[in-house]
Amino acid sequence: MNPEIAKLGHVSLVTPNLDKSLWFFHDVIGLEITERSSDTVYLRANGEFEHHSLILKAGDRAYMDHIGWRVKRPEDVELFEHLLKKSGTEVQKLPKGQETGQGDAIRFQMPTGHNLELYYDVEKPLAPEGERSVLKNQTHKSWNRGISPRRIDHVNVWTSHDPGGAHNWLTEQLGFKMREYIRLDNGQVISGWMSVTPLVHDIAVMAEPNAPTPARLHHVAYWLDNAQDVLRACDILREHGITPDQGPGKHGISQALFTYVRDPGSGHRVELFSNGYLIFDPDWEPVEWTEEELALGLTLWGPTDYIPHRDNHAMDQTTEA
Amino acid sequence: MNPEIAKLGHVSLVTPNLDKSLWFFHDVIGLEITERSSDTVYLRANGEFEHHSLILKAGDRAYMDHIGWRVKRPEDVELFEHLLKKSGTEVQKLPKGQETGQGDAIRFQMPTGHNLELYYDVEKPLAPEGERSVLKNQTHKSWNRGISPRRIDHVNVWTSHDPGGAHNWLTEQLGFKMREYIRLDNGQVISGWMSVTPLVHDIAVMAEPNAPTPARLHHVAYWLDNAQDVLRACDILREHGITPDQGPGKHGISQALFTYVRDPGSGHRVELFSNGYLIFDPDWEPVEWTEEELALGLTLWGPTDYIPHRDNHAMDQTTEA
Amino acid sequence: MNPEIAKLGHVSLVTPNLDKSLWFFHDVIGLEITERSSDTVYLRANGEFEHHSLILKAGDRAYMDHIGWRVKRPEDVELFEHLLKKSGTEVQKLPKGQETGQGDAIRFQMPTGHNLELYYDVEKPLAPEGERSVLKNQTHKSWNRGISPRRIDHVNVWTSHDPGGAHNWLTEQLGFKMREYIRLDNGQVISGWMSVTPLVHDIAVMAEPNAPTPARLHHVAYWLDNAQDVLRACDILREHGITPDQGPGKHGISQALFTYVRDPGSGHRVELFSNGYLIFDPDWEPVEWTEEELALGLTLWGPTDYIPHRDNHAMDQTTEA
Amino acid sequence: MNPEIAKLGHVSLVTPNLDKSLWFFHDVIGLEITERSSDTVYLRANGEFEHHSLILKAGDRAYMDHIGWRVKRPEDVELFEHLLKKSGTEVQKLPKGQETGQGDAIRFQMPTGHNLELYYDVEKPLAPEGERSVLKNQTHKSWNRGISPRRIDHVNVWTSHDPGGAHNWLTEQLGFKMREYIRLDNGQVISGWMSVTPLVHDIAVMAEPNAPTPARLHHVAYWLDNAQDVLRACDILREHGITPDQGPGKHGISQALFTYVRDPGSGHRVELFSNGYLIFDPDWEPVEWTEEELALGLTLWGPTDYIPHRDNHAMDQTTEA
Repeated sequence: MNPEIAKLGHVSLVTPNLDKSLWFFHDVIGLEITERSSDTVYLRANGEFEHHSLILKAGDRAYMDHIGWRVKRPEDVELFEHLLKKSGTEVQKLPKGQETGQGDAIRFQMPTGHNLELYYDVEKPLAPEGERSVLKNQTHKSWNRGISPRRIDHVNVWTSHDPGGAHNWLTEQLGFKMREYIRLDNGQVISGWMSVTPLVHDIAVMAEPNAPTPARLHHVAYWLDNAQDVLRACDILREHGITPDQGPGKHGISQALFTYVRDPGSGHRVELFSNGYLIFDPDWEPVEWTEEELALGLTLWGPTDYIPHRDNHAMDQTTEA
Repeated sequence: MNPEIAKLGHVSLVTPNLDKSLWFFHDVIGLEITERSSDTVYLRANGEFEHHSLILKAGDRAYMDHIGWRVKRPEDVELFEHLLKKSGTEVQKLPKGQETGQGDAIRFQMPTGHNLELYYDVEKPLAPEGERSVLKNQTHKSWNRGISPRRIDHVNVWTSHDPGGAHNWLTEQLGFKMREYIRLDNGQVISGWMSVTPLVHDIAVMAEPNAPTPARLHHVAYWLDNAQDVLRACDILREHGITPDQGPGKHGISQALFTYVRDPGSGHRVELFSNGYLIFDPDWEPVEWTEEELALGLTLWGPTDYIPHRDNHAMDQTTEA
Repeated sequence: MNPEIAKLGHVSLVTPNLDKSLWFFHDVIGLEITERSSDTVYLRANGEFEHHSLILKAGDRAYMDHIGWRVKRPEDVELFEHLLKKSGTEVQKLPKGQETGQGDAIRFQMPTGHNLELYYDVEKPLAPEGERSVLKNQTHKSWNRGISPRRIDHVNVWTSHDPGGAHNWLTEQLGFKMREYIRLDNGQVISGWMSVTPLVHDIAVMAEPNAPTPARLHHVAYWLDNAQDVLRACDILREHGITPDQGPGKHGISQALFTYVRDPGSGHRVELFSNGYLIFDPDWEPVEWTEEELALGLTLWGPTDYIPHRDNHAMDQTTEA
Repeated sequence: MNPEIAKLGHVSLVTPNLDKSLWFFHDVIGLEITERSSDTVYLRANGEFEHHSLILKAGDRAYMDHIGWRVKRPEDVELFEHLLKKSGTEVQKLPKGQETGQGDAIRFQMPTGHNLELYYDVEKPLAPEGERSVLKNQTHKSWNRGISPRRIDHVNVWTSHDPGGAHNWLTEQLGFKMREYIRLDNGQVISGWMSVTPLVHDIAVMAEPNAPTPARLHHVAYWLDNAQDVLRACDILREHGITPDQGPGKHGISQALFTYVRDPGSGHRVELFSNGYLIFDPDWEPVEWTEEELALGLTLWGPTDYIPHRDNHAMDQTTEA
């Protein structure tokens, strides 16, 4: 049986200003802290049972350290290791506990240079008494603080390499299915939204020809249950002196209701996100968006200017791997 | 006792393409038709009891014919007539029925040249059987068709004349109170939001130095009960092939949750609008926004580019008086 | 010129458990404290400029001390005093400062025994630095804590006396207009929704034949901008171990989107409320609901069982004057 | 490789009043018709690509004919056939086209007597020109008519047999995973929410000891993107003279934001549903709700009276198989 990825587990971000980043993700976004050391903090959203969906690490400059994926079965970590090595990918082993709360894992690079991690075992700590949700199917209280998202949703990465190659690699090596993509008139696929779950994307890989490094994070997305919750998030950002990077708006592709905002401590971009749709059809035909259809695909309504730096809180240090 | 204005009654718009404008306001916006002749259509929103809040009239070019205001008492039409004449304003009398569904009225111009109308008597026709709301405090069924707003909210006009003069005139002649305004560093008041009701504005008058005519409509606004209903409106516009002009977003001034869209038949701009706040304090201090505070005042979040023509459905013929 | 009431100012509630009531109104509802002494706390909502919209006072048992109304002009306090005395109502004078933050005031009883207060002068303290909204037209930050309503909306009182007499008295003495009412088949008017503002009601007076005292509070209502915010309020209540008393639902009368909940410290009922409609028509015809139409009038959708005590947090001490 | 179910495909309902049921599902709920014959109509929601998610069939009395499930791979229909037969389940073969729009299928009964159908091949007709969504990842226009849900979500069935036996059978024969369940103090599992997808349930099986037949439908659920859309649905139901059966409310179990309503043509119950949560954890521990926790599990907030017949539109003929 082929090994399989179950879900996006977490994103690990390095920040040159851990205090400010922690203020942003904890006080403003409203994630909960499950564990912290002097230079690293582990956070999760109120609906998440696993130890963390976000790692914040102090460092010299802002970059994404790795993207963590949880596999379906305990044996899948080792099965993936064999398959990856067989196809020539260099694989590093992480013993249990090297990443707090996590069992044995492996790390390797996508062809774009983005670091990926696979693991199965992970702790599921209870929320502290007094912060625990009244609901048994949720960990932390709803609406406890700040924006208060339910769970991590997806990660969106940019590359100066050929994204089409990365898409194929994700399919062949890791089993991601293409759900929607943009094809230019010259035939090049410049963006792809891919998933192993019914979400339209667990990961998107997009071309950014002029990027200073080949492997960049565009954003990590957290889920809110209602479009109205995203509008409330915009109010909260502004009350904290933070200007949304872009949004609110609705993409045609994935039908995502979104607002983007940058962590003022690091410049890393976060998407606050709701709506969208789910794919249960086993024979889903990937949706192609041509150059002509691109404007609608990117923007059903809302902002049309997808310029990386519009915001006075953006850092000079761009987010890079 | 001084005569008083009770409320914004209606806006009368001339359109070079009555069929298309009617499709927009009836099918897409979802207003209901109360009466029509060969070249004029009277419409209202589902929560309005009075005969019409919008008049669409066929004409050579797009312009706003007049803004109709309902006064508080029957005698106020004549009282206003006397006061206006005494202060040198030319007043035209409209006998009952000249505007369908409406009693005796007067017409006159603001110093900017915008035509205003005052009336008290107005018909309150029942909705036709089968379209009538199940609720006795509402006329037409909710959610009957298209966006389905509840009521007209306000009108926003632009002028190449001095808006400060217009603001003073509206206060002295008609009793409007200033609620919020923008003052430039040079002392000039360039925009004012004014009302006779607890709404932040029944009318706004804003400077547009380069306007081709001194008296233009910026937009007429229709109210929806929830921010989510404005997002739904954006979906509906796009499904009808119409791109919102700007939005969704939230103004700091008035805290309006808005989307703007242009009638593809005329280029007249409509605001679909919710949230905001009400002013009940009898000693409300008008809120001043300085040049430095202007960016936040115009955009709490959402679009920052208040450019009149972004939309391929905008007409060459701009909306003018 | 007749004196006029501008708005509902505040409600003063006595509670046998001030700590618990304060926890409820401050931590859970999210009102802000403007001032406190050993036995009294003054609170307001984030959109309110005046000193308080709620007074919590420690006492032996739960009852509503008084309802405060702000008049339109400084001289209206004295004008109302004369008119009330002339018609045989006993009037008590409260010198400036006797109620913290408030100028000269008068107190008197409705025919039902409910205590009313009229005042004009009131302090408008700024929010403390750090809690102040980024918006100049709002006092405290949005979404700062708990449910976070914008403003007080209305008060609903029950009486074992004839409510029709109270309605007439409110119209004749204080200028309230009837907006909607329930008339039984025997001709008796048992409930009336009345206002001096475009809100459908600033006050409702309803029959409760078996009440232990003639003058009871049914609820005080706080406003939220969106229906979704009321649903979020239900989540928050439950996360704090509080069961909504009734709701969510939508009344036909007033079209209120509501959830009721009792302060666990006192049993006083609060309505968390949105939507509804505004009345600008100067010749509004009060909407009559007959016995046959009553079911729809009370419940457009949602709970149909308007039983006072469904909730384990309700106190044995009912709310009474 | 074991055969797998991919998703809930459709529900087939028999109605004694096809015209009225079609009015309800097409005009009020807003489903789209893909095909019809004299006695059968095929419908789907605006976000569904497959031929139908609902079949309405004329008949003497109201009952659920079958629940259709789509399998993951073409060969899974036959693989399931073998496995089912091997374990003693009687299996009926349906050649391609016997159910319109659908390929080869099999039918068989759950131990409770509910009829299930498995198929892989299904037509994916385009929406007619003019009704097609502007979005390539959606079939029909959003908000075209009535409530306008996006897709079928799940089915909830009641049985007078032992539900625990049905749960085990669904796991062993068809691969459903238990997600949440209710266990009485006597050890009996009386309700289980089960899925093959990340939805909390594709199917729930609940005990109804006094049911007239062992195999009944409790409801079929359609999904809306926002809680506000469910509230709007309640407005629409009432404007069409239909009273929601129960709701709105939020279950603790599955965190479903719901309103129930009965088709006035048949009495079949429909859930209009949003929010909830998704399960991506491969080692999800089924959430147990004890008798003590049951009240919260059934009702986080909203109605607490789960009585089948509260509604004057309910039919004497209950929904049965």
